[in-house]
Formats: sequence, C-alpha cells, structure tokens
Amino acid sequence: MATTTADLTPATGRSDWLTALGGELAGHVDEFVAARCAEQFGGRGEGALAVTALPEFVRGGKFLRPMFAYVGWCCGAPEDAAAVRAVAGLELLHCFALAQDDVMDASELRRGKPALHTQFARWHRERGWRGSSDRFGQSAAILSGDLFLVWSEQMLRESGLPAATLARGWPHYDAMRSELATGQLADLVNDARIRPSWESVLDVLRRKSGNYTVRRPLELGAALAGCDSRVSRALGEYGGLVGEAFQFRDDVLGVFGDPAVTGKPTGQDLRDRKASSVVALAITMADATLRRELRRLLDRDAVDDETVAALRDAIMASGAPDQLEKLIDSQVRRALDAIDGANLPARMTETLAALAARSTERVQ
Amino acid sequence: MATTTADLTPATGRSDWLTALGGELAGHVDEFVAARCAEQFGGRGEGALAVTALPEFVRGGKFLRPMFAYVGWCCGAPEDAAAVRAVAGLELLHCFALAQDDVMDASELRRGKPALHTQFARWHRERGWRGSSDRFGQSAAILSGDLFLVWSEQMLRESGLPAATLARGWPHYDAMRSELATGQLADLVNDARIRPSWESVLDVLRRKSGNYTVRRPLELGAALAGCDSRVSRALGEYGGLVGEAFQFRDDVLGVFGDPAVTGKPTGQDLRDRKASSVVALAITMADATLRRELRRLLDRDAVDDETVAALRDAIMASGAPDQLEKLIDSQVRRALDAIDGANLPARMTETLAALAARSTERVQ
Repeated sequence: MATTTADLTPATGRSDWLTALGGELAGHVDEFVAARCAEQFGGRGEGALAVTALPEFVRGGKFLRPMFAYVGWCCGAPEDAAAVRAVAGLELLHCFALAQDDVMDASELRRGKPALHTQFARWHRERGWRGSSDRFGQSAAILSGDLFLVWSEQMLRESGLPAATLARGWPHYDAMRSELATGQLADLVNDARIRPSWESVLDVLRRKSGNYTVRRPLELGAALAGCDSRVSRALGEYGGLVGEAFQFRDDVLGVFGDPAVTGKPTGQDLRDRKASSVVALAITMADATLRRELRRLLDRDAVDDETVAALRDAIMASGAPDQLEKLIDSQVRRALDAIDGANLPARMTETLAALAARSTERVQ
Repeated sequence: MATTTADLTPATGRSDWLTALGGELAGHVDEFVAARCAEQFGGRGEGALAVTALPEFVRGGKFLRPMFAYVGWCCGAPEDAAAVRAVAGLELLHCFALAQDDVMDASELRRGKPALHTQFARWHRERGWRGSSDRFGQSAAILSGDLFLVWSEQMLRESGLPAATLARGWPHYDAMRSELATGQLADLVNDARIRPSWESVLDVLRRKSGNYTVRRPLELGAALAGCDSRVSRALGEYGGLVGEAFQFRDDVLGVFGDPAVTGKPTGQDLRDRKASSVVALAITMADATLRRELRRLLDRDAVDDETVAALRDAIMASGAPDQLEKLIDSQVRRALDAIDGANLPARMTETLAALAARSTERVQ
C-alpha cells in the first residue's frame, strides 16, 4: 500500500523511528551473541543446543530497555552508532533476568515457547542421560543467564563509546544490575510471605521493574550523553512513573491476560502465588466478606482452574483492576507532564509519549 | 616464638610475602562486599540474612586466584596498591562459581559449613514461610552468585588502575568469565553422560579449573602489567600445567580426602556421580574384571556408604591414584621448568614454586 501524506503525522514518524531503532538494536545483539556462541560452543557437543537456543531466546524480545536508554542518549547528544551498540547490551541483561526468573518461578513457557530450562531438560531427556532432566535443565538455564549477564556488560564496554563517556554510565549500569538481583530476592521473599502488604509489594515493584525497565535505562542513556541535571531529573521522574505503570499492566495481564497475547497460561501469576500488585490491592480494597473469600482461595494448597476462575471473580469484585487502570492512566499523564517542561528535543518528547503508551497498553 | 635467622630462608620469605598479600587481598574484598551489602540490603527485611552471610562466605576463601594474578602483575611491573585491589575481585568471581555450583551439585556443605543455599533454605524454614524452603534457598544462592559476578567486575573496574591498563586485561577477564560458565555446562553434560571418556574429562578439566584457577589469572595479571610475550607465554604454560595438577589433586581429595580437611563428606564426588579425572582414569586403567566391578558400582541407583567404600577400593586397585600422583609431580616439575628460562624476577620464580606446591599439596 502506498504511503500517503496523511500517514506522515508526527506519531507515525516516531513509530517508524522506533521500528527502525528496534531493527538496528536487534541486529547488533544478534551479531554479538552469535559470535560469542560460536566462540564458546562451536563444535563442542555440550554446546549443541546452546549455540542455537541462546540466539533464538534473545531474538524474541521487544528491546524496550535499550529503546528507553537510547532515547535518554538522544535527549543530550546527537544520534550515534556506537551509542546504539552500547545500549543494545541492555537486552542481554533482560535475557539474563528472564532465563533465571523462569527457573526460580518454574515457568514452563516464555513468550508462548518452552522456557530455556524446559528446552535444556527436554534435550537431556531425549539423550537418555543420567540424573534428573529437570535439574539439568535448570542448571543449564542458570548458566545461560550468567553468560547473558557477562555479555551484556561486554557489549556496553566494547561498543566503541570513548572510555570517558562510558565512565559516566557505569554507576547507573552497576546500580541497575545489582538492583535486578536484589529486587528478585525481595520478590521471592514477598511471594513466600503469607500475606505481603500492598506497601511492601509496591516497594519491590518500584525497585525491581519500575527502576529497571524504564527509569534506569533512561538515566543510563542520559548519563552517557552527559545530559544536564534538569533533563536527567525529568527523565528519572518520567521513568519512575511509567516503570510502575508498566508493572501494574504486567500484573493485570498476569491475572486477566489472554494466553495468546501473554504467551503464558491463563492466570499464571495466581498459579505461581505471586505477590503481585493486583492481588495485594484486591486484599486492601475488599470488604470483610470478600477479604475472607480471597484469603480462603489464596490459602488453598493447589491453585487449579476452578480456583483461578474464582480468584479472578473475587479480584474483579474488589474493584482493584479498575483502580489499577486509573492508576496507570494517571501515572502516564503525570509522567508526560514531568517531561513537558524539561525542554527535551521535540521528537524525544513524542517518542517518550509513544513508549509510555507501548509500555502500558492493554494488549502487549 | 622468636624468629631466628634460620627461619628467614628465601622460601619462608616468599611465604611471608604471600601471607601478607593474602591479608591485603582479603581486606579489600571484605571492605568492598560490606559496602555493597550495606547499599543493597541495609535495613531491608529480605536482606537480613544476605547482609551477613555474603561477607562471611567471601571470607572463607584462600584467595589463590588473586594471588596468581598478582604474581602475573609482578612479573612485569612494580608492586602497586591499585593492582592488588584489581585482582582481589577474582575472589568474587570464584565465590560466584561456588555459590551456584553448590546449588547445581546439591552440595550441602562448603568448607565445613552449610552451603549458601542451605543457609537460605533454613532461614525460610525457620520463618514458616510459604512454598518450598529448598527451592527458596536455591534461588537466593543463585542470586547471591549473580551479585558476586557483578561485583567482581565492578571491583576490577573501580580498582584505580588507569583505563589503558585495564583495557589490556579485559579480553582475558572476559574469556575467564565465559569459560567458567561454559566449563560448568560441559561438566554437567559429562556428569550426565553414562560413561564419559578420560579424554573428554581431561578436556573439561583443562578448560574449567585448569584455565580458570591458575592460567587465566596469571595471564590477566601479566596482561595488565604489560608483560612481554615471552613472559606471558611462560606463565601461560606454567598455568596450564599447574592448573591441571590442581584439579587432579582436587579430584583425588574428592574421593579419598579427609572430611576434616576438605570440609565435605567422605567421597563426596562419588556420591555426586561426578565425572572426575580419578574415576575416568580408573576405568581406563582397570583390567576387564575390575572395570566390570567399577561399572557395576557406578551404575547403582544410590551411592551409599558401602558403595563409596567399595568404589574407593576398586579405584585404588586400578592404580589410578598412584598414576595421578605421578602426573601431579611431573606437571609441577614441567611447570617450573617452563618459567625457569623466562627471566622472571627471582622472587616471583620462588613464589610461583611456592604457589605450585600450595595448589597441589596433599592436604589443602
């Protein structure tokens, strides 16, 4: 179909720019990971699965974190090929988190495909090897995650950005990596607690996804570019608000999302007994009768299909999902207000609006 | 007891130097980890165990890898406080490997104390939290390992060595980190195979422990110091040989070691069905009758105390332990020959002899 002038509104323009950026980011990561895999696994029997499974795992992503980081860069410096390569490594940091989280949560599916540990377990089983296939799969996925973690940093360091430029970014990068691990530990503790409060769930959510998905990448990009403190502050505020909203959306999808869209079974977060924001808020908002019902369902030994359905009804009745939709809307509005007065390049303001929408839309 | 002049032989002198170096290295790592723990866990409930358990875990080490790296440095540059800080981070790389290996091997003990995952599991259990305590412990130990991996690199980067000096070291450091993960994957595959060959065990042993314990640290230190290629080559050769001998010793201790010395139960490697060099060599050296007996014992569903005792007898009868002792001796001799003609500073030649002995001695 021919492009008409009507298509070339600023919004389409930004979306084209993001699409092109996404393609470039994916190309860099793909090339880097393929080279590392060939180096580490090429011709070795034990690497026969890893050499194809790892690049494929990386290719499945949306590159949201590198996009935010590159927008941060563009708020303070001209477009730069080395900067694109540098931020692309953030996708590998995300792959590290996903590969290991899926082991810890015993999630069998990732983006509608078998999780990495499931693939390795199947590989072990098919070969009739000794010992537990599940255990082997878990260990191999943990090690794959370790490699992604190492490669992420290597990609940033070898991006071609000058050492002085990188030096401005390292403190942000280190904070992001450490928070990712400590945030996941906090998450595990909250999941294990009998009844975590809305406040403690919110605290973890802020530190983990909120910071790591939006705020830290933006701040990293801005720091690398040498943005002034007013711009960095505005991006940080936007990032905190959109990051939280992103996680609220993710939590709503974890309970109510369509498996065809989420790539996970219906109500996966309920089955995993995740201390998610939507559950914690439902308990907070419910009246005494509904709260008793919620707790009775949450305390069941096994969360089967019938329990999932009953929990979804009870959570809906509490009003928590509606409340979260309002929160998402208001956080995104406040985030856009925060960058409004920061004198960002006009196209970056538009791109941040598009990314806020993309991070929090109902169908992801 | 007063020191007499007789004590001040060169060997004692070197040992004093190593002891002082060990103290300095331990101090740096301790300070760094305490600061990171305070930053990440201070005042947070979910970090209440980690904030003490992680520093304690780090303190238990022998700092062998940083010592080798610093000797590599001293072969090409004067002693330097920033270089000591830089190589100290290698101990955290080792902690990363230990914390995660113990999860993968389900080892309950590390240096005679509960392994990190065992400590976290107990902590979960004592609080009466929901879900599997063992699973929680494993996840928390994996995350602790991730933090050690991140901190190791951070410590090297923040050591105070100039960027140009660091730039010479990164390729070696990256190779070491990646090999550690891919070597462990190869190890898992070998453990899972019904009967790995002596050759494939030797291949993994070379890539994993051989490289990572001695050779790569030495090469890293030498690269940071800008050693000439003749020195680097000699250190690499020494490192390959001593690294292998170190692992042979470790494998012998894993089957025959005294629990009071190894900090692990008797015959732990047999219980774990590790594809270790001593088992693979025993199968290779055994005559037909003994080989049948070895395979019968190795194929048993459970390796109990009686099986461990019978396996130890059969392995001893194969002659493999004696053969490994001869290999260890000859590798150490060849390693010392390799550095003999390299014109290293005299005290470094002596220190490398002391470290070769320390890495391969019968009681570690």
